[in-house]
Amino acid sequence: MEDLAQLGQRAQQASYSLGLLSTMQKNQVLLAMATALTTQQDEILAANAKDLENPQVPEKFVDRLRLTADRIEAMATGLKQVVALPDPIGNVDRAWRNEAGLMIAKERVPLGVIGMIFEARPNVTVDASALCFKTGNAVILRGGKEAIHSNQALVQVLRGALRANDVDENAIQLITDTSHATAEKFMQLTDYVDVLIPRGSARLIQTVLAKATVPVIETGAGNCHVYVDKDAQLQMATDIVINGKVQRPSVCNATEKLLIHQDVAAAYLPSMIQALRDQGVEVRGDQATQAIVPDVVPATDADWGTEYNDLIIAVKVVDSEAAAIAHINRYNTQHSEAIVTDNYQAGKIFQQRVNAACVYINASTRFTDGFEFGFGAEIGISTQKLHARGPMGLAELTSYKYVIDGNGQVRH
Amino acid sequence: MEDLAQLGQRAQQASYSLGLLSTMQKNQVLLAMATALTTQQDEILAANAKDLENPQVPEKFVDRLRLTADRIEAMATGLKQVVALPDPIGNVDRAWRNEAGLMIAKERVPLGVIGMIFEARPNVTVDASALCFKTGNAVILRGGKEAIHSNQALVQVLRGALRANDVDENAIQLITDTSHATAEKFMQLTDYVDVLIPRGSARLIQTVLAKATVPVIETGAGNCHVYVDKDAQLQMATDIVINGKVQRPSVCNATEKLLIHQDVAAAYLPSMIQALRDQGVEVRGDQATQAIVPDVVPATDADWGTEYNDLIIAVKVVDSEAAAIAHINRYNTQHSEAIVTDNYQAGKIFQQRVNAACVYINASTRFTDGFEFGFGAEIGISTQKLHARGPMGLAELTSYKYVIDGNGQVRH
Repeated sequence: MEDLAQLGQRAQQASYSLGLLSTMQKNQVLLAMATALTTQQDEILAANAKDLENPQVPEKFVDRLRLTADRIEAMATGLKQVVALPDPIGNVDRAWRNEAGLMIAKERVPLGVIGMIFEARPNVTVDASALCFKTGNAVILRGGKEAIHSNQALVQVLRGALRANDVDENAIQLITDTSHATAEKFMQLTDYVDVLIPRGSARLIQTVLAKATVPVIETGAGNCHVYVDKDAQLQMATDIVINGKVQRPSVCNATEKLLIHQDVAAAYLPSMIQALRDQGVEVRGDQATQAIVPDVVPATDADWGTEYNDLIIAVKVVDSEAAAIAHINRYNTQHSEAIVTDNYQAGKIFQQRVNAACVYINASTRFTDGFEFGFGAEIGISTQKLHARGPMGLAELTSYKYVIDGNGQVRH
Repeated sequence: MEDLAQLGQRAQQASYSLGLLSTMQKNQVLLAMATALTTQQDEILAANAKDLENPQVPEKFVDRLRLTADRIEAMATGLKQVVALPDPIGNVDRAWRNEAGLMIAKERVPLGVIGMIFEARPNVTVDASALCFKTGNAVILRGGKEAIHSNQALVQVLRGALRANDVDENAIQLITDTSHATAEKFMQLTDYVDVLIPRGSARLIQTVLAKATVPVIETGAGNCHVYVDKDAQLQMATDIVINGKVQRPSVCNATEKLLIHQDVAAAYLPSMIQALRDQGVEVRGDQATQAIVPDVVPATDADWGTEYNDLIIAVKVVDSEAAAIAHINRYNTQHSEAIVTDNYQAGKIFQQRVNAACVYINASTRFTDGFEFGFGAEIGISTQKLHARGPMGLAELTSYKYVIDGNGQVRH
């Protein structure tokens, strides 16, 4: 078993010097990393080939796992985009003089050491490293065993760029022992790791939540609803539901449920369901939906809490906006929820009462994304209320400290 | 055993309506609570007498536990002070239009349900309830068994004021079964509790951290240092060390360690140590300190990591500022640290490199406090980096949501 305490100690040590780097120094390293990815492409592809040769890799992972020259180029481009982003470290949120005459400044600082736990996508290795580095955080990566050779090669390239720029290479470390026992120990490395960010399947995230003693930022689960109000425009509602469901069904901000007000269900559902079916979507419905469109698949209770991540949607007829809100607050994952309505009151009540990170009026749930929000980056989408909620960019990878200037003040 | 799931469900239900109350409605209830505390003083004092009669209450808890007419009046005054504070709920941190034309507003909302775990001080029941209520959060209180009758009486008074103002009384609930088993179940009530805030001894906080699956805000442990630089003024340094150590030695922002630069140790230590002794402080010292003031108690390795919360201080001579910073970052609890110096560079380097919530130049560590910071309230002092760091006032009891207004946008 790897000596995780030593790994943690090295990360913590590196984090102290990372917090002192200027934005210019950090950007220089990020550009060097981008160049190194391109020049060392052959080594990366060779390592990736080893991963792909492994007969135990499930077929559905092969595409996520595969690296190509284009994909490596995309990683390098991603690094350059991070260079262009403003650095939140050193920003002062506010500063004020207190009654005793102390000048108190609330200054943004790195979180310290971030643990990333993820699955088979090797691009996460580069993305996460870049975002953590730009915010002065050390990162410890624990990727899926399927991608171990690719991840080792990528981390070697990134660490080479750190060394070449006289930056502590332990800013980026990879756990190479991909056993569950080591992963569990990692999740409990409270002396050295400030926060864990799991990225991947609901199962991975639930495991981390159950086993971790290090604080976790819960990400990713999205059982997102669109509620079509009685004052909705049919065409707008159809466009929003179709976009939410079919544009990219495998992701967490995809629409999984359609709630519709009973006053418009009979008029709207036949064409909306037809539009969904035209896109290859399996439509499941409650009894009221079945009464209107008899050939939908009957929905069971289990459907309401399920995130399909697939071309499936469940439809429920509700007798009021209040019933829609109650249903959402009971079954949602606090990710993204939308109402379609032309009624001002209905829209504002929905935004106020629905308990979720992002609540939309008249827009697709698919907009919940760091890039769409204009953050220029995304390390994940938080579904918890503590620290960060919704899309997390660079700002969400920071903490703060109070720096206080006095001239001999003592407390009375 | 109490039905905690039911308790949690009721709190969650209450939290939905609390989030919708206007500031004016909340203030009216807080004023009603203040009045009720005064008018129902006799019932509260009678319940408190029962707690005090318990022969199992340790002598040292008696003073914390005791309520008097004056102390109840102070609680009522505290409630009125919370009325006067600005309400953070509904504040928009920022709002912007994204590329697709969506108007995105980051709006402050309550955390939801807050679990408070504390020990023998019944005033925490009222303080915490007021701060949680003002920020639209439901609170579940779990106080020490020594104060159970007092807490029940206080909560009954507060809930009466909620009912009288047509607010869901489950905004404030007390766990009356004070067994450890129930406390542990409470710490794992992830379906209903959004965050746990333990307040009390280091042992209590460590227990909560170890057992909780609900996110915890770690508070309170303070192994605070004052580093006296070679360019410090002797009198200022002495004043700051004395104030930090003796003004209130039992609290978490008290100074526990004195580090002193070797260049001034021989000149400064004799008078500083004498000043500490004049205040009844036991002074422990490393070998270099012993060489200067031979009759100090020899410090052992265990001293450097210990929070005394008592009239004891340990002194260490360091050969440089870097050594002082390294020592602090190794042994501190990331609470409050101070440097005394007239050297600009030394001060700024200390603030930048010391890993703590509050880093002072030329001021006492005792200033780390929500009231001294001007927050007008304090629910605790966070020693973690996630969500909140340092003194926590009303703003730290909030989360945010993105409310997004569109007119039919879908993602391309």
